[in-house]
Amino acid sequence: MKEKNNLKEEKISTQPFPRSKKIVVNGKLHDINVAMREIETDELPAKINGEIKNEKIKITVYDTSGPYTDPSKNIDVLKGIEPLRASWITDRNDVEELTTFSSEYTRTQDQKSEIDAIRFNRTRYPLRAKTGCNVSQMHYAKKGIITPEMEYIAIRENQKFHETIESNKEFSFQHKGESFGAAVPKIITPEFVRAEVARGRAIIPNNINHPESEPMIIGRNFLVKINANIGNSAVTSSIEEEVEKAVWACRWGADTIMDLSTGKNIHETREWIIRNSPVPIGTVPIYQALEKVNGVAEDLTWEIYRDTLIEQAEQGVDYFTIHAGVLLRYVPLTAKRITGIVSRGGSILAKWCLSHHKENFLYTQFEDICEIMKQYDVAFSLGDGLRPGSIADANDEAQFAELKTLGELTKIAWKHDIQTMIEGPGHVPMHLIKENMDLQLQECGEAPFYTLGPLTTDIAPSYDHITSGIGAAMIGWYGCAMLCYVTPKEHLGLPNKKDVKDGVITYKIAAHAADLAKGFPGAQVRDNALSRARFDFRWHDQFNLSLDPDTAKEFHDETLPADGAKVAHFCSMCGPKFCSMKITQEVREYAANHNMIEENVLSEGLDEMAKKFVKEGSQLYVTQE
Amino acid sequence: MKEKNNLKEEKISTQPFPRSKKIVVNGKLHDINVAMREIETDELPAKINGEIKNEKIKITVYDTSGPYTDPSKNIDVLKGIEPLRASWITDRNDVEELTTFSSEYTRTQDQKSEIDAIRFNRTRYPLRAKTGCNVSQMHYAKKGIITPEMEYIAIRENQKFHETIESNKEFSFQHKGESFGAAVPKIITPEFVRAEVARGRAIIPNNINHPESEPMIIGRNFLVKINANIGNSAVTSSIEEEVEKAVWACRWGADTIMDLSTGKNIHETREWIIRNSPVPIGTVPIYQALEKVNGVAEDLTWEIYRDTLIEQAEQGVDYFTIHAGVLLRYVPLTAKRITGIVSRGGSILAKWCLSHHKENFLYTQFEDICEIMKQYDVAFSLGDGLRPGSIADANDEAQFAELKTLGELTKIAWKHDIQTMIEGPGHVPMHLIKENMDLQLQECGEAPFYTLGPLTTDIAPSYDHITSGIGAAMIGWYGCAMLCYVTPKEHLGLPNKKDVKDGVITYKIAAHAADLAKGFPGAQVRDNALSRARFDFRWHDQFNLSLDPDTAKEFHDETLPADGAKVAHFCSMCGPKFCSMKITQEVREYAANHNMIEENVLSEGLDEMAKKFVKEGSQLYVTQE
Repeated sequence: MKEKNNLKEEKISTQPFPRSKKIVVNGKLHDINVAMREIETDELPAKINGEIKNEKIKITVYDTSGPYTDPSKNIDVLKGIEPLRASWITDRNDVEELTTFSSEYTRTQDQKSEIDAIRFNRTRYPLRAKTGCNVSQMHYAKKGIITPEMEYIAIRENQKFHETIESNKEFSFQHKGESFGAAVPKIITPEFVRAEVARGRAIIPNNINHPESEPMIIGRNFLVKINANIGNSAVTSSIEEEVEKAVWACRWGADTIMDLSTGKNIHETREWIIRNSPVPIGTVPIYQALEKVNGVAEDLTWEIYRDTLIEQAEQGVDYFTIHAGVLLRYVPLTAKRITGIVSRGGSILAKWCLSHHKENFLYTQFEDICEIMKQYDVAFSLGDGLRPGSIADANDEAQFAELKTLGELTKIAWKHDIQTMIEGPGHVPMHLIKENMDLQLQECGEAPFYTLGPLTTDIAPSYDHITSGIGAAMIGWYGCAMLCYVTPKEHLGLPNKKDVKDGVITYKIAAHAADLAKGFPGAQVRDNALSRARFDFRWHDQFNLSLDPDTAKEFHDETLPADGAKVAHFCSMCGPKFCSMKITQEVREYAANHNMIEENVLSEGLDEMAKKFVKEGSQLYVTQE
Repeated sequence: MKEKNNLKEEKISTQPFPRSKKIVVNGKLHDINVAMREIETDELPAKINGEIKNEKIKITVYDTSGPYTDPSKNIDVLKGIEPLRASWITDRNDVEELTTFSSEYTRTQDQKSEIDAIRFNRTRYPLRAKTGCNVSQMHYAKKGIITPEMEYIAIRENQKFHETIESNKEFSFQHKGESFGAAVPKIITPEFVRAEVARGRAIIPNNINHPESEPMIIGRNFLVKINANIGNSAVTSSIEEEVEKAVWACRWGADTIMDLSTGKNIHETREWIIRNSPVPIGTVPIYQALEKVNGVAEDLTWEIYRDTLIEQAEQGVDYFTIHAGVLLRYVPLTAKRITGIVSRGGSILAKWCLSHHKENFLYTQFEDICEIMKQYDVAFSLGDGLRPGSIADANDEAQFAELKTLGELTKIAWKHDIQTMIEGPGHVPMHLIKENMDLQLQECGEAPFYTLGPLTTDIAPSYDHITSGIGAAMIGWYGCAMLCYVTPKEHLGLPNKKDVKDGVITYKIAAHAADLAKGFPGAQVRDNALSRARFDFRWHDQFNLSLDPDTAKEFHDETLPADGAKVAHFCSMCGPKFCSMKITQEVREYAANHNMIEENVLSEGLDEMAKKFVKEGSQLYVTQE
């Protein structure tokens, strides 16, 4: 482990959100502190114990930004962030610290002085399961153990929403949604988390070598998650930019990050990202394996791939996309497609299979791969190498043949207690989306589904965050557990920071819309708080409760920049005379000033009031003219 | 009619789209020329009569941009655009040109010299139905008459897609969708248009005083349409900007424009917009009526409102939003809502009802309104004044009570042969959207539904084009006929040109995604053409076939600006080694170079080929190593 580098620390985004602070909620089973973000509103009248008081309301929201938005934390990207899970992992007494790297590639790389300048300074060697041990969360779950990770997740998923509702009844909500799969309890318990992981219906991607990550869960009976892809390519981008892109994506809500780098310094870039990432990191190991054989797919071998898996597992990658379902006999099924094979991994493996006329080595060596995964708790993300790349190719034979194979592989992975999710398409018109979800649940034993979009039309390059956000929201509602974002640059180029943010926010919208539609407990608290702020003309609260306070404020200020406008009872859209919310408030005041009656309307049943209203000559609101 | 003005002609967008030209298709029943946009691709090999030739392919798309993208037309906003329907209207011999304006307000306004400078120079007085005549398209349709408007629409809806498919079989598509309502014929016929209008299932908004508009249809058995709202408010904007906003919105695909101006010079602004608009114009007449009583809702009277309807009908407004369903007894049903009444019109009328404790005069005078509408063929857009303004308020009693009343009013309108559509919400979580569509069809006798979004979450101000684009796509699929766009500025301020474009493109995406899901004939031709261009690395074709060629090209060029990159077989997203499409093409070439076999795969059934492939030891693609 050589030491020295000159990575610039500039550009990492650390400022907290407006009127937001980090809070922690303590565990009961374990000594854990679960971080959340609390947004404080203006003072507003709240009825507490029957008495009306002016109080600031606190809304707690799920927070993926890690320590970066916490001013009390000293961020030093050269050292990486705090390894909050380190003791949880070692306390289980089933891992050992190695005395060297197990990967030949890593050992070689570590000796190269020419990359000292860009190398992250590791201070320890990797951990690995002791011989015969399986350190996956699924393994613990099946044994009935509730780990600190599981309790952390239960607390995190609840977002303190019961306390929020308790402190201000007006934020309560009707549980109108439908839930999918197992009945979701009103409060997520650590035991519920354990049971879902044991059943394979949810996964907790957290490699023992990525102790910096805050535990999170991917499963359809939890909040819908989103993934952001980052990564350079041979054409553009740098290490510094990639680290900031990861931090930036987490800031806006990415639940996991996939590092899809394909350029040079792929190993070093990944190390920087993992050491600085508070969210799980996924990769597609075949990309790096291909780099190692200079881009010649035919030259790939199981040995090179295996060494790559170990290399990345010891860095701390939390899940691997593995295209083990691209079978030789499925390749001709793509011949008649408009867009052939559009998965990078899928096309590489198709080429390998054809040129060797052999079965995909990821399929034939699958149990060997399982043996590696369980030693580090790396989760499978079984890749859909044959996903459709156009509306015309959706739900075709190639796609569903591969899905069936992924189902078979899921059962093998579960036999080894390896956490597993399944990747999905792609490009799918709306009416064919549900079939994808239903078949996936059926074929893959309800393992979590993780889809890219799907894009619901092909005709809008430069707006594919939107074409796919539509499909993502729908499949999230139908039961998809994690949505892989698509940025406006999809099909056109490498996303910059603005694109990453646009992609993340669009997918936060899709995921949240799905949570609402599923009736996930507490999901509506934030909507209600924001809508109430909107109705009260509490402009700052409306901005601050939104997914992107900066842009909301900027848009408002474009036409009404003065500070006074932040208390105005209108905006520039309708102007003062035509603001419906203002008029409605006047209607309510009018009623109040005429001895009236909102109180009665509120306390009595609405139905009765409407009848009484008609019966009394429609004079309910107005007793004098 | 005073003459003189100094409106600046600057800023009107007139350039054609890249490699696109206007074409016309002639009618068979009538002497009409239906305008479309033809996009020409690079040369590519096409099999024509069994022979492979290199040919440029022409894709025809629906075009709302009017004469502005036609270099052969001389655009002069001071004169307005060509009145293409003028003779169709007068040829029916059921209208007369007036000798003065029927509206008192218009006559007064016409005499004011102080507004000469901003007045459009009208060259004729308005038309009105001869006494006892009804000039609505529904009236003709019920009498079995196929008007030129109906034939125009039939040709326009078909977009020449059969010819496109004929000229290149590869663009053919599977009709996988579900259609809603009456079975849609494979080719839309003029008679089908007539029958749908007669049945009330579709409307053709085209006031006899707006002969400049190109006929279009709104109904769920036709292409899903979108509306763009423009309009100044007291706070900002100018006439010049509004005209350009209308032209700009049509350029990007708005099928109708609503002028929601509420500031001063509302009459003059509207005149400019109508005279220069190739698409139907809708308004909410209560806004102007309120201006006339200085913003005091209580001072509104039927007489002022009636004069406003006539004023606008004689300018050429094609449909009126009329909130006749906001009944006095429904107002208290909104008291417990989080966001009360969020429709501007709805809140104005609620205030009027309460302060007079009288029933809504739009409801009580509804048949009088019908008498006006039929003299000009103005269509009803029955407003949903009690639509929900937040997720919490969706699908509540107030909303559905009003919907029921709108159903009653629809039947009255139909009795008068007035074309009628119904406006819908608003803010609705995904799982409650379908109930809106189903109830609307049931209550309103299948009259076309025209919804604002709906927004599927409240927490993303500055991204509400996206929160609502999700809901819009879904309700379009479920059967909504027209989607009213929402811009990123919704809830925050007045949209600028960028916001208008973002809103329009987002809604074109939603509408097109719905057309695909419904399996509308020909909808998939453009997707297939674009995807094929993508797979062939025909970058310019990919840009040009997209909804926004400018931005697609700009995004591509951000990382690879050189001209050479436009022929490169990769983009900066993955770089050359990792481009799946490139690798797939290599796979196909590889197969071809090894005596193989794509031809066989293509000509034989895929199923058999896959079996044969396995049987022959999986050596299908590769005969030598």
